[in-house]
Amino acid sequence: MVTRYLKLITLEEARSLIRTSFPHTISHTSIPLEEAAGRITAKPIFAKYSVPEVHLSAMDGIAVRSIDTHTASEQHPVVLDDVRRVNTGNVVPAPYDAVIMIEDVTIDGDRFTIRKAAAPWQHVRSAGEDIAESEMVLPSMHRVRPHEIGALAAYGVTTIDVVSLRVGLIPTGSELVFHGAHPSPGQVVESNTVMAAAWLETMGITCTRYPITSDEPDRIRQMIERGVDENDLVIVSAGSSAGTHDFTAQIIREMGVLLAHGVAIKPGKPVIIGKVEGTPVIGMPGYPLSALTVIREIIIPLLTNYGITVPAKETLNTRLTTSLHSEVGTDEFVLLSVGKIGGGYVATPQSRGAGVQMSAVRANAYLRVPRNLEGYEAGSEVPVTLMVTRGQADSALLVTGSHDPSVDYLADMLQNRGIEVHSTHAGSMGGLMALMKGDCHAAPMHLLSDSGDYNTWYLEKYLPGVDLVILTVAGREQGIVSKDGVGIDDLKGRQFINRQKGSGTRILLDYELKKHGIDPASIPGYDREVTTHSAVGLAVKTGEADAGMCVYSAAKTLGLKFVPVGNERYEIVIRKEQLSDPRVAALFETVSSPEFIGTLDRLGGYDTSETGHRRQLP
Amino acid sequence: MVTRYLKLITLEEARSLIRTSFPHTISHTSIPLEEAAGRITAKPIFAKYSVPEVHLSAMDGIAVRSIDTHTASEQHPVVLDDVRRVNTGNVVPAPYDAVIMIEDVTIDGDRFTIRKAAAPWQHVRSAGEDIAESEMVLPSMHRVRPHEIGALAAYGVTTIDVVSLRVGLIPTGSELVFHGAHPSPGQVVESNTVMAAAWLETMGITCTRYPITSDEPDRIRQMIERGVDENDLVIVSAGSSAGTHDFTAQIIREMGVLLAHGVAIKPGKPVIIGKVEGTPVIGMPGYPLSALTVIREIIIPLLTNYGITVPAKETLNTRLTTSLHSEVGTDEFVLLSVGKIGGGYVATPQSRGAGVQMSAVRANAYLRVPRNLEGYEAGSEVPVTLMVTRGQADSALLVTGSHDPSVDYLADMLQNRGIEVHSTHAGSMGGLMALMKGDCHAAPMHLLSDSGDYNTWYLEKYLPGVDLVILTVAGREQGIVSKDGVGIDDLKGRQFINRQKGSGTRILLDYELKKHGIDPASIPGYDREVTTHSAVGLAVKTGEADAGMCVYSAAKTLGLKFVPVGNERYEIVIRKEQLSDPRVAALFETVSSPEFIGTLDRLGGYDTSETGHRRQLP
Repeated sequence: MVTRYLKLITLEEARSLIRTSFPHTISHTSIPLEEAAGRITAKPIFAKYSVPEVHLSAMDGIAVRSIDTHTASEQHPVVLDDVRRVNTGNVVPAPYDAVIMIEDVTIDGDRFTIRKAAAPWQHVRSAGEDIAESEMVLPSMHRVRPHEIGALAAYGVTTIDVVSLRVGLIPTGSELVFHGAHPSPGQVVESNTVMAAAWLETMGITCTRYPITSDEPDRIRQMIERGVDENDLVIVSAGSSAGTHDFTAQIIREMGVLLAHGVAIKPGKPVIIGKVEGTPVIGMPGYPLSALTVIREIIIPLLTNYGITVPAKETLNTRLTTSLHSEVGTDEFVLLSVGKIGGGYVATPQSRGAGVQMSAVRANAYLRVPRNLEGYEAGSEVPVTLMVTRGQADSALLVTGSHDPSVDYLADMLQNRGIEVHSTHAGSMGGLMALMKGDCHAAPMHLLSDSGDYNTWYLEKYLPGVDLVILTVAGREQGIVSKDGVGIDDLKGRQFINRQKGSGTRILLDYELKKHGIDPASIPGYDREVTTHSAVGLAVKTGEADAGMCVYSAAKTLGLKFVPVGNERYEIVIRKEQLSDPRVAALFETVSSPEFIGTLDRLGGYDTSETGHRRQLP
Repeated sequence: MVTRYLKLITLEEARSLIRTSFPHTISHTSIPLEEAAGRITAKPIFAKYSVPEVHLSAMDGIAVRSIDTHTASEQHPVVLDDVRRVNTGNVVPAPYDAVIMIEDVTIDGDRFTIRKAAAPWQHVRSAGEDIAESEMVLPSMHRVRPHEIGALAAYGVTTIDVVSLRVGLIPTGSELVFHGAHPSPGQVVESNTVMAAAWLETMGITCTRYPITSDEPDRIRQMIERGVDENDLVIVSAGSSAGTHDFTAQIIREMGVLLAHGVAIKPGKPVIIGKVEGTPVIGMPGYPLSALTVIREIIIPLLTNYGITVPAKETLNTRLTTSLHSEVGTDEFVLLSVGKIGGGYVATPQSRGAGVQMSAVRANAYLRVPRNLEGYEAGSEVPVTLMVTRGQADSALLVTGSHDPSVDYLADMLQNRGIEVHSTHAGSMGGLMALMKGDCHAAPMHLLSDSGDYNTWYLEKYLPGVDLVILTVAGREQGIVSKDGVGIDDLKGRQFINRQKGSGTRILLDYELKKHGIDPASIPGYDREVTTHSAVGLAVKTGEADAGMCVYSAAKTLGLKFVPVGNERYEIVIRKEQLSDPRVAALFETVSSPEFIGTLDRLGGYDTSETGHRRQLP
């Protein structure tokens, strides 16, 4: 009998369960020293011999007995004959106990004249100066840094024992195809164990990805048996929920102990914590961002039982740009784009759909909304955890507003200059609002006023008196995308796919419909909204809609027909005070560069005659 | 003709020379996606298809036409017959445009009763919700994060082009032996190219370590030719100075262009920047810490020409515990141990010898002393760059004072609890001073007063009225170490090796000599000082001295004879207010643990009957 509802425990309870239910044992393996960077030592490491083992000269010169030199001075040079010529690194043998630099010696055959006394042990590297035989170089549980490998090599260490762990990853689901195959409709590429392995392998863990197992209890059971046999820890991907095809929890209960099914986190709620023959078996949910959260919040903490730790990520206080509502009773993890504007950091939430992996690609931080809160209001100060270094977060350029493929190419060019563009696709009006509230560095927009002007009228209305600089990206062709090449006058009666209210494209469409005397109500699907040019094109390509309005490049990419409606002015707006920010300056330079103009020409559908043109308001 | 003196340029000049003299070109190689974590993308990466490609159900339930459901309510249920049963992830085919969760449906054969209208597109994952075909997923020059590998796998990407670079490492020096061989006196293990390769390989660079080349110009020339043929960048290790055996600069001048010989940095001054057949050839000095500095300050900046960047390390403001004097005109890089005491960070310089690799092993930060300064006074506020994460620096426990091998074992046990011990071997009096100035968390000491008391008399004298807690590590046997088993009364006329003034061992020796009526002046070598027990033992082992005084474990490790002089009390002293610090609390717990006592018993020479005993002052 399969339980259809989960009994949730809190994240803290889950972590405590893990700490107390599973062994704390360190497995280790011996590896060549050269491969040890980033690995964790399983035992303390000792020097095999002293370095240096004998006294060495630290200079090119002569080794002397210091006592023979005591009377030497400029006035009373001393001539030595019992000396040894040494170069840097040569042995200084007994009875010599000092080195005089060659520059300070006058040599005449076997006679060496000096004009200054040598202090005992001057310019001598004493035996054991660096380390003495059998001294501890590194403790156990230490993450080896590359330069320590050099030191260990010098101290005679050739192999070291490092912490090791074998993790078995079992992908389940009849709808899965292996990474590399093109999925048919309804099939999904198995990417969660690919991600988990990539993550765990960076920690020096040995991962085995087992074949895809279909949703059949017997096959899943066999695979878990094998996984438990061959590994220290088993992760079963997908099938962890409580639906009719979710067998993992029941199988674990039959094979061993089901410690928990369901943790009050979002995404990632339907996680399983089980134990089979003493081995932890974790059921990881199938949605990619659920899987990501479970790896980070549950599996990585579990790894500390086995001596594998990861350095804590940095946290920052940020101002949240939009309100976030969250379910009480659940700890929600929200992915964010964080950047520095003026003196402080602002954080913009990414899409919260657990299937939207691009949210994690775009994010550089995440926020935990504690389970006792209903969320946060826009403008709240919230602590976020970085998914990048502080330096990378500081280099983030926040671009919020209307999206155009050319912005991705700008991002590409800016990344080459060390600047990470974080685009939030909020539509032109969304960009205008973000600019008003100081939530972004730059806002791309194409807002057509009734008078036929682009952007100026809106900016003067919403940001009156604010010093703004407006940078023209390009004139951009908008048109009707379809399979059969229809124009704006042919829309009546056809299934349409629209853009969201507040988007420049929607405003342009409404302007054009009015101009052509077409009643929006006569267009079926006028109310069906999507938020990007690509989504419009895709709806047409898949047959969901007959027509929509988008930019030329989106139609071209998908191989669809495009009937131009008109050129619009796609511009990027910033507050003038930001012009001195090096990230913004780089953005302006890049837009004006021949490379960027070349890219627009190659993409097609852009009029670049005014690209890079600047104007100011007021 | 070999130039014997270097013409120094500044570090900034060296970096600018690198930027302008060498090409800025990106080499790339295609690798399987699974291996891409941490690598840098060489080209933007696009989605191969939309995800999802068609509309999918986000729930287990029934797919419906939303228009059929508009009138449904609790009072007026609607019975549907044209629906499609769907599980999460199933295709929602046309003409269906919404999903109703199975919990909200009453099923009776082919009749589905619902009590609530379905909004269009509810519980449907639209085609392209995650990403649309051909959209850019990642820009070029982006360091791939593990979770992005999952996203790319889902988007049909199987291989990616990443930035690559081939670096050839040529170790030179007739005194070198390969890592793994035990060096004879005067030989040195070639560890610098091992270190360089370990470091560069963490950045995804392909390194070739060439055979050791002896100091013969023709052989070095041949090897550089081969290196330049086979690599994008060549590093010649050692031979970069201006001595009689330093040929590299002259060879590079003959083969190509010697751009610079000597950069005003310390360590690392005798660096060579050259170009042969368009390929950069860098001469890296032979002292390990010079090599380390040149890699970090010159070679890594050069890598940015080739698209390889490393995230900037974090910087901190710290209070310097000791004065640092530095040569004007030279940028000096000083390795430090940094830790947090009270509200601020303190930084203690490590040994500045360029041959002391342990300084870099022990350090967690470094300080650049700018060339226009003569150094810093103790107590100065200085900005340091961390060589670890901030979290690791925050976990540092600073232990300054008398060193005993047992402290290394304490460090090992504490590392297992996530605490990094940074020991500075300053002797007992050095520890006392550090405690006075608030420069350490804990000070180990064994200071014998004339009355025969350990530590109390000194602490009351130097820290009167300060609340202190004193933790007994062990009673510790000190004795005379020798090859022939001599005692304190046999020292006269033998060559002695002494400990430095202010060390507890020196104080004990003087106390015992006085007790035995022995005049220090009668002991040859009484003035020859070293700073550790191991160094004393080593001097005896190598025959430099006949006898010295040290702890039992140091004699035992080196296989030497040991004649006890007496038991002393080795204790760790902290300020009482530190007792609540979790790092200090962990230290106290660890000293009192059976594991630590077992370790002392195993090492031998310790009386553990009072280990873990605490007393307080005043």
